Amino acid sequence: MSSSSSSSPATIFKNPNPKFAHLLPQSSHWKQQVTNWLQEDIPSFDYGGYVVGDNLQSATLLCKSDGVFAGQPFANEVYQQCGLTVEWFIEEGKFLEPSKVKDGKIKVALVSGPVKNILQAERLSLNIISRCSGIATQSYHTIKLARDSGYEGIIAGTRKTTPGLRLLEKYSMLVGGIDSHRYDLSSMIMLKDNHIWATGSITQAVKNAKNVIGFSTKIEVEVQDEDEANEAIDAGADIIMLDNFKGEELRAVAKRLKARWEGKRHFLLECSGGLTLQNIGSYLCHDIDIYSTSSVHQGTGIIDFSLKINK
Amino acid sequence: MSSSSSSSPATIFKNPNPKFAHLLPQSSHWKQQVTNWLQEDIPSFDYGGYVVGDNLQSATLLCKSDGVFAGQPFANEVYQQCGLTVEWFIEEGKFLEPSKVKDGKIKVALVSGPVKNILQAERLSLNIISRCSGIATQSYHTIKLARDSGYEGIIAGTRKTTPGLRLLEKYSMLVGGIDSHRYDLSSMIMLKDNHIWATGSITQAVKNAKNVIGFSTKIEVEVQDEDEANEAIDAGADIIMLDNFKGEELRAVAKRLKARWEGKRHFLLECSGGLTLQNIGSYLCHDIDIYSTSSVHQGTGIIDFSLKINK
Amino acid sequence: MSSSSSSSPATIFKNPNPKFAHLLPQSSHWKQQVTNWLQEDIPSFDYGGYVVGDNLQSATLLCKSDGVFAGQPFANEVYQQCGLTVEWFIEEGKFLEPSKVKDGKIKVALVSGPVKNILQAERLSLNIISRCSGIATQSYHTIKLARDSGYEGIIAGTRKTTPGLRLLEKYSMLVGGIDSHRYDLSSMIMLKDNHIWATGSITQAVKNAKNVIGFSTKIEVEVQDEDEANEAIDAGADIIMLDNFKGEELRAVAKRLKARWEGKRHFLLECSGGLTLQNIGSYLCHDIDIYSTSSVHQGTGIIDFSLKINK
Amino acid sequence: MSSSSSSSPATIFKNPNPKFAHLLPQSSHWKQQVTNWLQEDIPSFDYGGYVVGDNLQSATLLCKSDGVFAGQPFANEVYQQCGLTVEWFIEEGKFLEPSKVKDGKIKVALVSGPVKNILQAERLSLNIISRCSGIATQSYHTIKLARDSGYEGIIAGTRKTTPGLRLLEKYSMLVGGIDSHRYDLSSMIMLKDNHIWATGSITQAVKNAKNVIGFSTKIEVEVQDEDEANEAIDAGADIIMLDNFKGEELRAVAKRLKARWEGKRHFLLECSGGLTLQNIGSYLCHDIDIYSTSSVHQGTGIIDFSLKINK
Amino acid sequence: MSSSSSSSPATIFKNPNPKFAHLLPQSSHWKQQVTNWLQEDIPSFDYGGYVVGDNLQSATLLCKSDGVFAGQPFANEVYQQCGLTVEWFIEEGKFLEPSKVKDGKIKVALVSGPVKNILQAERLSLNIISRCSGIATQSYHTIKLARDSGYEGIIAGTRKTTPGLRLLEKYSMLVGGIDSHRYDLSSMIMLKDNHIWATGSITQAVKNAKNVIGFSTKIEVEVQDEDEANEAIDAGADIIMLDNFKGEELRAVAKRLKARWEGKRHFLLECSGGLTLQNIGSYLCHDIDIYSTSSVHQGTGIIDFSLKINK
Amino acid sequence: MSSSSSSSPATIFKNPNPKFAHLLPQSSHWKQQVTNWLQEDIPSFDYGGYVVGDNLQSATLLCKSDGVFAGQPFANEVYQQCGLTVEWFIEEGKFLEPSKVKDGKIKVALVSGPVKNILQAERLSLNIISRCSGIATQSYHTIKLARDSGYEGIIAGTRKTTPGLRLLEKYSMLVGGIDSHRYDLSSMIMLKDNHIWATGSITQAVKNAKNVIGFSTKIEVEVQDEDEANEAIDAGADIIMLDNFKGEELRAVAKRLKARWEGKRHFLLECSGGLTLQNIGSYLCHDIDIYSTSSVHQGTGIIDFSLKINK
Repeated sequence: MSSSSSSSPATIFKNPNPKFAHLLPQSSHWKQQVTNWLQEDIPSFDYGGYVVGDNLQSATLLCKSDGVFAGQPFANEVYQQCGLTVEWFIEEGKFLEPSKVKDGKIKVALVSGPVKNILQAERLSLNIISRCSGIATQSYHTIKLARDSGYEGIIAGTRKTTPGLRLLEKYSMLVGGIDSHRYDLSSMIMLKDNHIWATGSITQAVKNAKNVIGFSTKIEVEVQDEDEANEAIDAGADIIMLDNFKGEELRAVAKRLKARWEGKRHFLLECSGGLTLQNIGSYLCHDIDIYSTSSVHQGTGIIDFSLKINK
Repeated sequence: MSSSSSSSPATIFKNPNPKFAHLLPQSSHWKQQVTNWLQEDIPSFDYGGYVVGDNLQSATLLCKSDGVFAGQPFANEVYQQCGLTVEWFIEEGKFLEPSKVKDGKIKVALVSGPVKNILQAERLSLNIISRCSGIATQSYHTIKLARDSGYEGIIAGTRKTTPGLRLLEKYSMLVGGIDSHRYDLSSMIMLKDNHIWATGSITQAVKNAKNVIGFSTKIEVEVQDEDEANEAIDAGADIIMLDNFKGEELRAVAKRLKARWEGKRHFLLECSGGLTLQNIGSYLCHDIDIYSTSSVHQGTGIIDFSLKINK
Repeated sequence: MSSSSSSSPATIFKNPNPKFAHLLPQSSHWKQQVTNWLQEDIPSFDYGGYVVGDNLQSATLLCKSDGVFAGQPFANEVYQQCGLTVEWFIEEGKFLEPSKVKDGKIKVALVSGPVKNILQAERLSLNIISRCSGIATQSYHTIKLARDSGYEGIIAGTRKTTPGLRLLEKYSMLVGGIDSHRYDLSSMIMLKDNHIWATGSITQAVKNAKNVIGFSTKIEVEVQDEDEANEAIDAGADIIMLDNFKGEELRAVAKRLKARWEGKRHFLLECSGGLTLQNIGSYLCHDIDIYSTSSVHQGTGIIDFSLKINK
Repeated sequence: MSSSSSSSPATIFKNPNPKFAHLLPQSSHWKQQVTNWLQEDIPSFDYGGYVVGDNLQSATLLCKSDGVFAGQPFANEVYQQCGLTVEWFIEEGKFLEPSKVKDGKIKVALVSGPVKNILQAERLSLNIISRCSGIATQSYHTIKLARDSGYEGIIAGTRKTTPGLRLLEKYSMLVGGIDSHRYDLSSMIMLKDNHIWATGSITQAVKNAKNVIGFSTKIEVEVQDEDEANEAIDAGADIIMLDNFKGEELRAVAKRLKARWEGKRHFLLECSGGLTLQNIGSYLCHDIDIYSTSSVHQGTGIIDFSLKINK
Repeated sequence: MSSSSSSSPATIFKNPNPKFAHLLPQSSHWKQQVTNWLQEDIPSFDYGGYVVGDNLQSATLLCKSDGVFAGQPFANEVYQQCGLTVEWFIEEGKFLEPSKVKDGKIKVALVSGPVKNILQAERLSLNIISRCSGIATQSYHTIKLARDSGYEGIIAGTRKTTPGLRLLEKYSMLVGGIDSHRYDLSSMIMLKDNHIWATGSITQAVKNAKNVIGFSTKIEVEVQDEDEANEAIDAGADIIMLDNFKGEELRAVAKRLKARWEGKRHFLLECSGGLTLQNIGSYLCHDIDIYSTSSVHQGTGIIDFSLKINK
Repeated sequence: MSSSSSSSPATIFKNPNPKFAHLLPQSSHWKQQVTNWLQEDIPSFDYGGYVVGDNLQSATLLCKSDGVFAGQPFANEVYQQCGLTVEWFIEEGKFLEPSKVKDGKIKVALVSGPVKNILQAERLSLNIISRCSGIATQSYHTIKLARDSGYEGIIAGTRKTTPGLRLLEKYSMLVGGIDSHRYDLSSMIMLKDNHIWATGSITQAVKNAKNVIGFSTKIEVEVQDEDEANEAIDAGADIIMLDNFKGEELRAVAKRLKARWEGKRHFLLECSGGLTLQNIGSYLCHDIDIYSTSSVHQGTGIIDFSLKINK
């Protein structure tokens, strides 16, 4: 077995050596979540642990399908909470190609400790890594296609993440090389159609929002037509999301908005939805600063990993 | 808009009117999880809530892609915790076909309450329903194909569920019409290759297991060849999982095992892995009691739902 | 002081060297429970800790009444959370007889660390060990009497455990040598009279149950007479609980059921309630596979332990 | 069935109508504990709930062995969290005598709601009431014997309660008519032998303690002989615990201490341990203000209750 | 008693009718915090509750010192969790002047329910309202003085809030009429001196930051001199914090920066620290967009409230 | 920089070397609170941590305004949870005078570890220490003035602490040299006017209270006039709080009460409220045993600390 990889997300970032694990605080709620997930899998007795006992053993974590390896710090925490030590052979963010290796497997890590503890950690660590890597891989393919098409703007995910897994999924988007978009409803405010109906006008909605979010938080406004876009820009929105604009119209409107407000207002244009790996080439245009899509993280497949005890 | 549906999972169950929501206890941890998920989406201030205020409003939950509707009691809890009332138009478990409806949308529910509360509940309820329905749909297609192929045995999921979402995903498998398999490591014990290496023999491993799980819990043993299968059956295993058996060999071994132990031992045969919607026809045989596969719940797509404020 | 012990539960198990501590997962809820229990005893200030300070000291854990020593891993966790080290002199599961020792005390462990920490751990660790050992001892006496009477079947506990202590009490039953019976309502389903009234018939109730528990979980049915027993066996129940059958009738019915279904159905017979240390000899019969009783864990006495600072 | 009772704990209190339920705050941790206990019994699916459904039903709570009924507010909370309503026929604290009633059963309450919810609440509510009533009953018998012997001082429990159940058990002691003694290590400080060794002298230990507990908290000192008792009283201890004093010596020392310090110091004398229902008559003396014993709550039996669905 | 108030924070906001309570989500962690705070005050028994019982009563919440009333939704939650109803006479955000009223008291609310529940809620609700109002009042005085001095920019608080009370304190700043600044380390990133040392340059630090925060989050850079300010603006920082700039120099630098980058870069200038109610007049200048100060919330006094049972 | 200090709280205690940190249990809820506070400051990603990385660094904790240093064990826990080591140069309880030092700063500790971890711990540790030291300092100034005025009785705080911070604030009062008064409603009971109205008389209220608090807990009664004081003393109250007694009347009543009950009843007199650093000299009298005041902990200022990375 050996490792094989051509172009990893790391080459997509301008920053030569990003360590995404540094984003995760030392003491925090996400470590408690790992405890809860272990508890979910062993609510009372670990019958298997009784059967196998606590002889010291080691196991190899193997990657068995092509993709970007992600989720390392979360798996690390699983192993640590189970009283195991890990030696990692692969850096998070690398694109692995087991399909190009003779036996179809790439060694990712060596996990050591009491055999019962290895079996306690097995399923959870695999469930985490396979999902994180699935999202990182889909994100990577999308940003790579965009770059290959000559697009230099932002590809971003959405807030349509799995309940309870937002940190892991936003993290995996970052590892895959895309923008994770606003984190939650307490971050950048997004004023959609129903916010605007409820307040009477875009101008009033933006005014209300500024009252509480202050100078430190951005405001995005979703608009249905060019007039609304102009109103939102004038009201001081930081980002304008063009909704239901298609093809040539999208490009034309984006161009006109950028031209009209140049030097007068500072804003970004976002186009949401519809982007897929299939249509990406014909979809992108330079006047749109951001394309956001849930296709990079929702309902994506997984990357196959396994953990095998070394006999 | 109208509702359209031909054959739902309910028709797959022998029990005429299953209400899966009765599986969820009145007072329990899963309701606290819903609180945590809401908290994940609004960790501090709800800026949008400030903008829109608390005028009473209603919103319609719409299904926009074909599939089995699942996740109702979890969405219900989201609405309730957000101080909203819901009127459901569709029963959980029904197969919805918005693609056959004029505007491509089926009304699933009407949600009413303060507009800020509706927006607080929106994303989480959609995230839940779309994922649950995705799994129920994939489960349903799989069992339906199996039944159409004349297979009358069990199709089951696995323990490869999303961390923190086991309850929702096992629940969705049930709604989709398949067996959810053992719940966790504290349920039915499964003795795999590494359990057996660690104890010396299948016989000893089964003996150890019986020491603690007692009479109320089943034992499954994963075997690599026919000799191991015979040893496991003789040791008293309740279920034998045939691992790495393919095609004709699988059928032949299953047949011989059933014949050899008839009237002497009570056991089931399980075949794990490899089963997909594509190969299912040629894969099934009557001597195998259970086919288990993660393809019904891991990396499945989602069913598209949206929640629209009624202007 | 010395250790003295004749026949321990270990000799009752067929497995020569059971380590029940392996049943407890490395990272889990039960360790958080230990934290809660320490918190219960010191909700705010530890006034005693202020008085005595943090000089290093050692203390001896002593057993002062005869019984099976149980609860070691839980006490271990108490000591560890209090920053103490422990050296154990006695294996869990051993039957201790301080009454046969000169000063009436057997040294069980040496606990070392800051004196304030020892005093923080003292009461909780003793409360745990004395209760666990009480249950293990009662369980041991019961199974021993059964074996001495020539009964080779199963003696099991019940679900009538102390709220919050099910893990400890089921664990103590195992240490004492008996079967801990089903763990909770999410484990093996037991269909009692009211389940059956509510569904109309035993056959329908079993059918409903099979719809959701699938192949991996057993079904037990409580029956009031022989006809019901036959219906339950025919419906596919795994275990039949004979309720309100007494003396000769119990034996006769058990015998007839076993004879009638031999080679046709695979099932176990359970007799619940009424069994005590006093009546056990005349109560047991070989056609009953399981006798379950709460007398082994509910309202049992405790075994006396103390923790004394070594001057 | 009817209710029968002669002399209840209420008659032991000077306060004519105590409602112990008023001791439990409206919003507090103990209600969360009830949730945890329900969760302990149904960690994931409620299979039985699926079988029986949610038809409205009622069930009768019956007392089946003689004793003081206790635990009502905790059971109340179980029923409420399970979505049930309760009508109570018996006041907490009453001594029930089903043995004097024809069918051996006294109706305690009527519980109503969906049948699945009744079955969810059944075991936990019974586990709580049977334990609480067991402790209240033993406490009641002890204080009654003491009063019958002419002793007018205090009978108190100890801190040797079941981990996690201190509130319930201290509460049950109060319902049974005895003093629940200090609640925890953050309440009244008790300076034992090892506190004193660690600080050098009783005088110094009391001085240290007063430094932090201030004027609002009492100090108790455990003494080994009369000299120590005198030192502790002089140092300002509020309560003196006479340890290892037996029979006549105990009485003589108590008398001398009370005489010597009369009008000079305000203190109480406590005698701990050894008191049982058997020896209580010969044990009590008027110069001892408090007798404390774990025999009223540790390893006591239970009172038998059941919950039966009304057909 | 009557209410008296001249100029409230509401008049400082451009939005005529702000309801800050809409910022607090319906289902969230902060309600659990209220439970924890009640638990802090009554860890086990409520002895006072036993003494007074549960007769229905009402109590009046009175303001006794001049200031802005804040904390209403948090107090509301306290009353609700204690099973009480409240009628509010005063809107949150109003400036109350009990000093101008005859008996020095203004009625703020009427609280009704069982007397024991009122006493359970009393201290916590007062502790909350008095602190929130203290911060709102200090914030209000500061912004009012700034507006009176002709300053039209932003006055903001800081992250130096009381541990566990950030939501309440940021909320109180908003009620008082100032900007609450970034919420936490997961919101707008602020690159201080040590961030810059650790990465080598401002340019590199901003680049690193943009890699992960994406387009939706702002970047602030703290600079020590004008060159650093220019580097930060050029690197794309959204806000520049001028540190250690005093008096005339501060004004001159701010003016030059605004002039130099006009039309080229979009940025705000912030001046942090040093601002107090005393020096505010001579401190403010129009080229500085934001003045931030912990003096509005840290170590501020409280506003005096009391809750009196209506005899 | 050097350390400078004249008279610390330690000299106010009779006990030569108090270590208040010994009051905090090894395993307890307050450590979980520290985790929650860290979580409050970094709910999801630590963007700053990503920017600076994990190079090993050290930082110096500096005191910048005069006062008593308090909060050490809580800050210690912050550093430990963030994976940092600390070397303390100053003992908790010392009065620091940076104003008398050349550069106005006193080195309190050296904190070492990964630079991202230092920045994670920075704000929380400073928020804790500055608040704790603020309370300890105000407490110290108050008790010192009282001692300088010749008063030898008790100065105590109150229960008007910040929600969630009672442990820290009561702890800080102790470090500052005063009595922390009763901890909560489950400690010493205080019967105020409304308790007495609700029960009919002081005598009845005290009787009710004794029914449940038993011998181990004290009773305080708040009285409005001398008659009530006499009734409360006669009923057996341990402490009498004189409410609304002023100046000469207070002194006269206190004297008469002490004289009347000498040798008959054991009680303390408390005077609550009104005491400030300004009026303390003319306020104190020897017949009052306790003066309690919230002025030592509520709305006190903070002591200024900072944490600077060592370049």
